[in-house]
Amino acid sequence: MNTHRLEIPNVLSRYRPIIDQGLRGVLDKNSNFSYVMMRYYMGWSDVSGNSVTAETGKYLRPSLCLLSAESTGTDPIKALPTAVSLELIHNFSLIHDDIQDKDEVRHHRKTLWAEWGIPKALMTGDLMYVLANQYILDSSLVNDDYVISSNLLNDACLKMIEGQYLDLQYEGQFDLSIDDYLAMVSRKTGALLRCSVDAGVILGDCAIAQKKHLSKAASALGYAFQIRDDILGTWGDQNSTGKPVGADIRRKKNALPMVHLMNHLDQSSRQNVMTLMKSDNLDRSDVQQVLSHMGSAGTYEFCQNLAEQFCSTAMSEIISSELPDTYRNDFEELIDFIARRLH
Amino acid sequence: MNTHRLEIPNVLSRYRPIIDQGLRGVLDKNSNFSYVMMRYYMGWSDVSGNSVTAETGKYLRPSLCLLSAESTGTDPIKALPTAVSLELIHNFSLIHDDIQDKDEVRHHRKTLWAEWGIPKALMTGDLMYVLANQYILDSSLVNDDYVISSNLLNDACLKMIEGQYLDLQYEGQFDLSIDDYLAMVSRKTGALLRCSVDAGVILGDCAIAQKKHLSKAASALGYAFQIRDDILGTWGDQNSTGKPVGADIRRKKNALPMVHLMNHLDQSSRQNVMTLMKSDNLDRSDVQQVLSHMGSAGTYEFCQNLAEQFCSTAMSEIISSELPDTYRNDFEELIDFIARRLH
Repeated sequence: MNTHRLEIPNVLSRYRPIIDQGLRGVLDKNSNFSYVMMRYYMGWSDVSGNSVTAETGKYLRPSLCLLSAESTGTDPIKALPTAVSLELIHNFSLIHDDIQDKDEVRHHRKTLWAEWGIPKALMTGDLMYVLANQYILDSSLVNDDYVISSNLLNDACLKMIEGQYLDLQYEGQFDLSIDDYLAMVSRKTGALLRCSVDAGVILGDCAIAQKKHLSKAASALGYAFQIRDDILGTWGDQNSTGKPVGADIRRKKNALPMVHLMNHLDQSSRQNVMTLMKSDNLDRSDVQQVLSHMGSAGTYEFCQNLAEQFCSTAMSEIISSELPDTYRNDFEELIDFIARRLH
Repeated sequence: MNTHRLEIPNVLSRYRPIIDQGLRGVLDKNSNFSYVMMRYYMGWSDVSGNSVTAETGKYLRPSLCLLSAESTGTDPIKALPTAVSLELIHNFSLIHDDIQDKDEVRHHRKTLWAEWGIPKALMTGDLMYVLANQYILDSSLVNDDYVISSNLLNDACLKMIEGQYLDLQYEGQFDLSIDDYLAMVSRKTGALLRCSVDAGVILGDCAIAQKKHLSKAASALGYAFQIRDDILGTWGDQNSTGKPVGADIRRKKNALPMVHLMNHLDQSSRQNVMTLMKSDNLDRSDVQQVLSHMGSAGTYEFCQNLAEQFCSTAMSEIISSELPDTYRNDFEELIDFIARRLH
């Protein structure tokens, strides 16, 4: 893998303008303050509603959806309603996730609940989800395509929320296996990424075998994406991620590094780490202690290796799907980016 | 209006079994703990998931939907998917509303966030809404009916959430007019009740004039319902409502009694009440003071009178809709119940 590939993949830039336009069509049309909050969250405005250029999302899900459509012979414009809806659903889940995890910062800016309190943030998340449903309803999709796409989106939401709920239930548990973790991630993160590909592919009439390969690639990509997220949450550079080193340890998240560590410590070190993790407030030296245990256990290598394995699986599935070269290359760039991204 | 009409209207009992069956089909099928939380919220189980017989909802929205369908010549079974979906949406909104308003008790039981914390309650509300969407998607409605019904439900959710958001924005404001209040209520409460009727009627082929009368009746009913709710929130009997007298005053809600009072006080009393309402904690004597001002301003009479006016409007619209006698009688019983209910 070449380092120059850490640039934003071509496919994310290519579809960005039409996704942006679709999203702005939904979120710019209303002057109610909850719409200001949504535009702020998208990185388009400051807290007062004035336009700014802040860091925005990568539009990974809608881009995957459009690429999946285009690469299997469907005009990406046909998949745009689903793509825009996916990005709105993703942001709805992030807004509620921020509340759930008490995250005060995302993309170097205050989260909605940190700025406006839980009640307004909660309602704004709900509104974002209803708008996602409305956007695809109002779209030009014929009724049958609409029902098929809605079914995929809705199933994905169901799994995503079940995954988020599992994540909550696992809090404070130190006996998760890697398999428990992967089963949770497959829903929490995987469901919407898989849906992005499935919903793009389903609008055309590509062969079932091709459909299956692309869907499997998306599944693998979901794992890789979350594992890379967990790696950045533990060892990421604050300048890139906006979070201090060890952020996930401090927040006691069931991220892969912690799950791996707890499965690879001897009895006494495990007890030691558990005592640390049960304390109300972890200070810098506590976090350093956990990081040092992770160093001895080879946790970083395990996690990055697992992420790369999932990326390899995704790559093989893409190759087996026998897409035209140009689209295969797009997928490969995207997969490579996900495995190695710094934020 | 006869007092014997305060019994549960026939129509609510009549449709209850099929609504119950539909809801249980959605919420009984999964052993994940978030489903236990939903069953607890419906009044079917205790906090551990054991079956109990607790106070449940009135199923007003789904019953209205089925009655609207049946009274305009559609088999109510055809409207059942929409009806069940409406009740799930209503409960999704209540779960999030409890968080928003910090309400710890509903139907004499602890609310979800009070029992399990905000994060899990938030996710469970989200899940309830996704299940509402899924139920109607999985239903036997043909695609065209599904799209029409989904459109109505989705628009209603949008308005409902905008209304809840407005309610939040108005917090701490003491200069609301009765019109501001009614505009907020028309969305917060009215939208879903109106949708219950519209979605029932739309599955058949009744005349446009009849459709309009029924929709107007539902609008009026929405106002009456919320005003009666606000009356109970201020003067309700704790044994019936589960809330102490003056509960809405204590919680500083923008309920109609407070809006009316602030519009009918002289300058100095207004200042006096505003100072009280801005204090962090209202004690029993503060609440008594506000209640006594409401007594002098004729607030109770104003509110009950307005509720009854809306009920009269609803009644006239029902009469104009020229339904068969038996269904007209069902609607009348329901309207009367809403105007005079004690909980």
